[in-house]
Amino acid sequence: MSTSSSNGEKRIRVGVVGASGYVGGELLRLLVTHPKVELAMVTSRQYAGEYVHRVHPSLRGFTEITFSPMDLDKLGSNCDLVFTAVPHGKAVEIVKKLYDKGVRIIDLSADYRLKDPELYKYYYGWDHPYPDLLSKSVYGIPELHRDEIRNAKLVSCPGCMAVTSLLAIAPLAKHDLIDLDHIVVDSKIGSSGAGGKPSSGTHHAMRYGVVRPYKPVKHRHTAEIEQEISIIAGRKVSVSMTPHAVNIVRGILCTNHAFLKRSTTIQELWRAYRGMYRNEPFVRLIRDTKGLYKYPDPKFVVGSNFCDVGFDIDERNNRVVALSASDNLMKGAAGSAVQCMNVMYGFNEVEGLLITPLTPV
Amino acid sequence: MSTSSSNGEKRIRVGVVGASGYVGGELLRLLVTHPKVELAMVTSRQYAGEYVHRVHPSLRGFTEITFSPMDLDKLGSNCDLVFTAVPHGKAVEIVKKLYDKGVRIIDLSADYRLKDPELYKYYYGWDHPYPDLLSKSVYGIPELHRDEIRNAKLVSCPGCMAVTSLLAIAPLAKHDLIDLDHIVVDSKIGSSGAGGKPSSGTHHAMRYGVVRPYKPVKHRHTAEIEQEISIIAGRKVSVSMTPHAVNIVRGILCTNHAFLKRSTTIQELWRAYRGMYRNEPFVRLIRDTKGLYKYPDPKFVVGSNFCDVGFDIDERNNRVVALSASDNLMKGAAGSAVQCMNVMYGFNEVEGLLITPLTPV
Amino acid sequence: MSTSSSNGEKRIRVGVVGASGYVGGELLRLLVTHPKVELAMVTSRQYAGEYVHRVHPSLRGFTEITFSPMDLDKLGSNCDLVFTAVPHGKAVEIVKKLYDKGVRIIDLSADYRLKDPELYKYYYGWDHPYPDLLSKSVYGIPELHRDEIRNAKLVSCPGCMAVTSLLAIAPLAKHDLIDLDHIVVDSKIGSSGAGGKPSSGTHHAMRYGVVRPYKPVKHRHTAEIEQEISIIAGRKVSVSMTPHAVNIVRGILCTNHAFLKRSTTIQELWRAYRGMYRNEPFVRLIRDTKGLYKYPDPKFVVGSNFCDVGFDIDERNNRVVALSASDNLMKGAAGSAVQCMNVMYGFNEVEGLLITPLTPV
Amino acid sequence: MSTSSSNGEKRIRVGVVGASGYVGGELLRLLVTHPKVELAMVTSRQYAGEYVHRVHPSLRGFTEITFSPMDLDKLGSNCDLVFTAVPHGKAVEIVKKLYDKGVRIIDLSADYRLKDPELYKYYYGWDHPYPDLLSKSVYGIPELHRDEIRNAKLVSCPGCMAVTSLLAIAPLAKHDLIDLDHIVVDSKIGSSGAGGKPSSGTHHAMRYGVVRPYKPVKHRHTAEIEQEISIIAGRKVSVSMTPHAVNIVRGILCTNHAFLKRSTTIQELWRAYRGMYRNEPFVRLIRDTKGLYKYPDPKFVVGSNFCDVGFDIDERNNRVVALSASDNLMKGAAGSAVQCMNVMYGFNEVEGLLITPLTPV
Repeated sequence: MSTSSSNGEKRIRVGVVGASGYVGGELLRLLVTHPKVELAMVTSRQYAGEYVHRVHPSLRGFTEITFSPMDLDKLGSNCDLVFTAVPHGKAVEIVKKLYDKGVRIIDLSADYRLKDPELYKYYYGWDHPYPDLLSKSVYGIPELHRDEIRNAKLVSCPGCMAVTSLLAIAPLAKHDLIDLDHIVVDSKIGSSGAGGKPSSGTHHAMRYGVVRPYKPVKHRHTAEIEQEISIIAGRKVSVSMTPHAVNIVRGILCTNHAFLKRSTTIQELWRAYRGMYRNEPFVRLIRDTKGLYKYPDPKFVVGSNFCDVGFDIDERNNRVVALSASDNLMKGAAGSAVQCMNVMYGFNEVEGLLITPLTPV
Repeated sequence: MSTSSSNGEKRIRVGVVGASGYVGGELLRLLVTHPKVELAMVTSRQYAGEYVHRVHPSLRGFTEITFSPMDLDKLGSNCDLVFTAVPHGKAVEIVKKLYDKGVRIIDLSADYRLKDPELYKYYYGWDHPYPDLLSKSVYGIPELHRDEIRNAKLVSCPGCMAVTSLLAIAPLAKHDLIDLDHIVVDSKIGSSGAGGKPSSGTHHAMRYGVVRPYKPVKHRHTAEIEQEISIIAGRKVSVSMTPHAVNIVRGILCTNHAFLKRSTTIQELWRAYRGMYRNEPFVRLIRDTKGLYKYPDPKFVVGSNFCDVGFDIDERNNRVVALSASDNLMKGAAGSAVQCMNVMYGFNEVEGLLITPLTPV
Repeated sequence: MSTSSSNGEKRIRVGVVGASGYVGGELLRLLVTHPKVELAMVTSRQYAGEYVHRVHPSLRGFTEITFSPMDLDKLGSNCDLVFTAVPHGKAVEIVKKLYDKGVRIIDLSADYRLKDPELYKYYYGWDHPYPDLLSKSVYGIPELHRDEIRNAKLVSCPGCMAVTSLLAIAPLAKHDLIDLDHIVVDSKIGSSGAGGKPSSGTHHAMRYGVVRPYKPVKHRHTAEIEQEISIIAGRKVSVSMTPHAVNIVRGILCTNHAFLKRSTTIQELWRAYRGMYRNEPFVRLIRDTKGLYKYPDPKFVVGSNFCDVGFDIDERNNRVVALSASDNLMKGAAGSAVQCMNVMYGFNEVEGLLITPLTPV
Repeated sequence: MSTSSSNGEKRIRVGVVGASGYVGGELLRLLVTHPKVELAMVTSRQYAGEYVHRVHPSLRGFTEITFSPMDLDKLGSNCDLVFTAVPHGKAVEIVKKLYDKGVRIIDLSADYRLKDPELYKYYYGWDHPYPDLLSKSVYGIPELHRDEIRNAKLVSCPGCMAVTSLLAIAPLAKHDLIDLDHIVVDSKIGSSGAGGKPSSGTHHAMRYGVVRPYKPVKHRHTAEIEQEISIIAGRKVSVSMTPHAVNIVRGILCTNHAFLKRSTTIQELWRAYRGMYRNEPFVRLIRDTKGLYKYPDPKFVVGSNFCDVGFDIDERNNRVVALSASDNLMKGAAGSAVQCMNVMYGFNEVEGLLITPLTPV
């Protein structure tokens, strides 16, 4: 079904379901300039018929596409790949139907992230109707699951705080360096992470200037972090995660506090992190003793697909602080999704994603 | 040396050393309207001779006092009480000399906070010259040391993040509820906490929008928290503290992560916190299931002397998250100082401090 | 109907209609600590029965009053004075009925600000049903109408941008210094000015960081400015006003551009402004050549009832720039309202309003 | 001197003088990914020898180039084109010497913007030493001077507020629609416009939340706007400009208030603006009646090279409000510079500049 681009190059035909939200808008931002992609169909119930730039003003001049109403048959017949960017619980059926039609899918909701169907009951409050499909879904972090993603029919993109935290903790777990019963993940996230729907808690006068804890216990991303760290560690781990809303729009910082099993040097940590990320195009190790950027800070990844990772040790109590920063709409959502697409189709993994962070902003 | 106010009421004569900084300015804001205080002398090397409202524009119209150069003799002879609000390391001699002159002192630097002189070497890099005076200094948290403060000649006000964190952890330690070896304090603080001196890291274009970890290990306030929790717990504890700069000017949130020794209910926690703070005028317990203010958030204490405290439990792994929020210039500095003054002089403890938070701001 | 306070002093009984909004909350903030006021009744349809601190968290600990449903009879029988803080168009009937019951009223909506009933049609889209009452309503700027306010039964508080702009332009118009056909008012205002109701335009991710023109022509406050300047100038004037939403919560800056009729010196301007405001407690003239505060800036009035005013001249083209800054919830709304109340009841005009701005915040 | 790129395509060799500032950093951000450019040399006195990503963290991973000390001979022999991004007054000699060496230059300082040497005395306080070179310099707005830029040896990029304002006023002046004696330009700009040097006025705690007028009269960009509008109008005009610092990092809004000479319709204005900008790739006309983006707002151009332009009319007093928004580091500086480079070398004018704005951010 692929089409040809102006220079004769094959392009895949791509659909975006739920394209009027922030994640959908960010996907469009990446896809309209991606050289291997033809944007075939973008859907929105609310804005069907409207130009996308009316909802996403930044795209004015970049595309003349309009929103279509949701139509699974059309998506099935027009698209090689569909990104689903609808709220949690809304993707579960859409994904199943598209899957059955043989379309490849990258889902950005939580509906196919967790392997254990019981966890949907605990964290989301509903029974997962397709446990079989859960087991076929690949968790979309190329740094952890690249080979599986390559051949996946269904990729489930990670939660924005989950992927950010995981990239910092993974090397520590992989090298058996930390006490897996006392991992504390303290996350800070910008307002775009809550989506585009206005509420009293997101109203500027009330949201501006907050350092607001929300779901200090039992946040849903906890389940993803535990799932993936358990796989790496080869045993069940328990993670203590507390997210906070802070006064930015884009960006996540995860401060991952852990306790070292034994006295460990900074050099050992470097080896662990470099060993894992040496060839990763989107993980940058940050540690400096001078300048403006000594540890990861989301300010310096805004607009890019980087997850910056750093760490420090407190020898007094064998504590390690592993820090990770990302743009929640990029590496935390749309950027990871496009990176997965590149892997799935054998494109250069960085295609369309080599965007510098915007600094200062 | 006390003077009479217009209505015949006695006022104490107060001096402020280092009155041009943010903490100094906030002290002046409180003192110019305090009914028991006559502002006798405010010093600033840099601004000697200038009207204070040139440096603190908010005071225009509230006082015509000008900055004086530092003069210990004049302070000694003109003041009943002196607040010292100079940088760490600069107060150590000033306080000693004023102390020897018999003036009562409330020091807002770190120079007399720690009981163990060795810790000055470790955390501040210098030998404390007056270990005897350290032992006489009272740590200025009325909620923990009210009786000692009453008769103190020297009160040392706590670090802003230390007092905020301590008020959340103290009830847990007092009731022996938590594992004292795995306390993680993750703090978030506004830019006024760094003082008024410009630098590349505080430059608006670089400081705006950050979620910047700084001193992720070995931050100086760690020592104060460990000192006080150790006193309460009756054993030496180790605290893991990591502060972050966030995109606000005023305010601190401390997310204090701890692990419960045994299964504990929310009701037990309520009892522990209520038992300790029931009669405290400046600690508010925050926990709601609806509305805009479910957990402590510095947005809702800005400008006030409150420390709001709340908590939640994750039964999955017996974790408790104790949250505390304050205005770093108020309960975190000048407000606590004035509260200590009220205690020292037998004034109503809330005198001059019953200021509502400014919401929304 | 007045009651006695604890110290035997008479207090007036005050009601607030529409107390759950931002202006209502700010009124409560001022009234709960006002020594001459007893808060008799506060109404809210949406929150009837709830403690006010559930909606206004900053008031937790300051009052145990709950919201009542609207009941004009109860308001009439329980209150000496009622503040009405409901949306434009909602006050018109409430005010009329309370007026007819003989209660004194301070209305914070626009419904009784304009003298010319035709303007309600043009700017608000409805016919004013009580033109007679319009003519009895006093426009609530004490600096312009103090004597009328003293005896008023109905005071209509000015629009937040209108009062801020008027205080800067009035001395120029009074002294016949400017071309009254080319007055340009360029206003910048924080998000609290738009009230507490969430919408896509006030959603943090979309409202944060804007410099958003709204109603660049025909903004409703234009009518108030023209009305009052016309009175001062003794002829009909036309004002060109354009407001902008900027990335703050509280505060207004009005940049009032005008052209001098003849070459004028800074000294002449000083005389005009000092002549008008010398004895005004809430207008501060700001003009400095060094320091942080050279011209008015809302940052330095936050939380206070001040309107700071300043100016400069461009001799090249005989232009004057008159600048004025206020807190839109204080001098722009609740602060002005309480100031009017103080005037109406012969209290000290600054009673309950001598609040320092909160700096830095 | 041009080199070949990997795909055999010719690249020009480019130098950047003063590459450690914000404008320099933004230039590098654009140049490292520009397909027609080889970055030959970037200079910084302060950071000579350091990797550029130490100063510009966003470039980590994009280039391994280090800062060189300034060396005019090397620049002359290594570069086809040099961008000079040094402070005003520092470029005047550097540009002259490079010019004499035959290198093409795009200067981002103000030193060669004004045609009338007298204006340097008035606005900058020094005598321009090279009035001849002033007359050869081309003012770098392609929308106004494309043909001259094509062959220019020296292009002087406009001031950020000047270009933003000019693009909004130019069509009005060109079509003789407005009173040229009463143009009021009210500008709002983010903190990056003040450069990277810390000061008390740019310190986060003091700069955050301001709406601060600075240079309300006689701002230097006034001269540029008057110069260019005078050319378009064919007579000397006088512009009244007042800039304000607002609480964002990137972005400019210019609210250009003018008075129509005669009754004019919105349709006439559309024709004037469309006539001038129909084929301009970086000017977008913004005017909508619904959605989030009804008028220009810098929030929606952040990171891009667009200048969004819109307008409205107040028939009551024949006023037009022409609004324009840009990113001060892009269309206001580095973006315009690269656009000029593309024109000078016959590249596709949008090469390297088709970057979507980052929304929301």
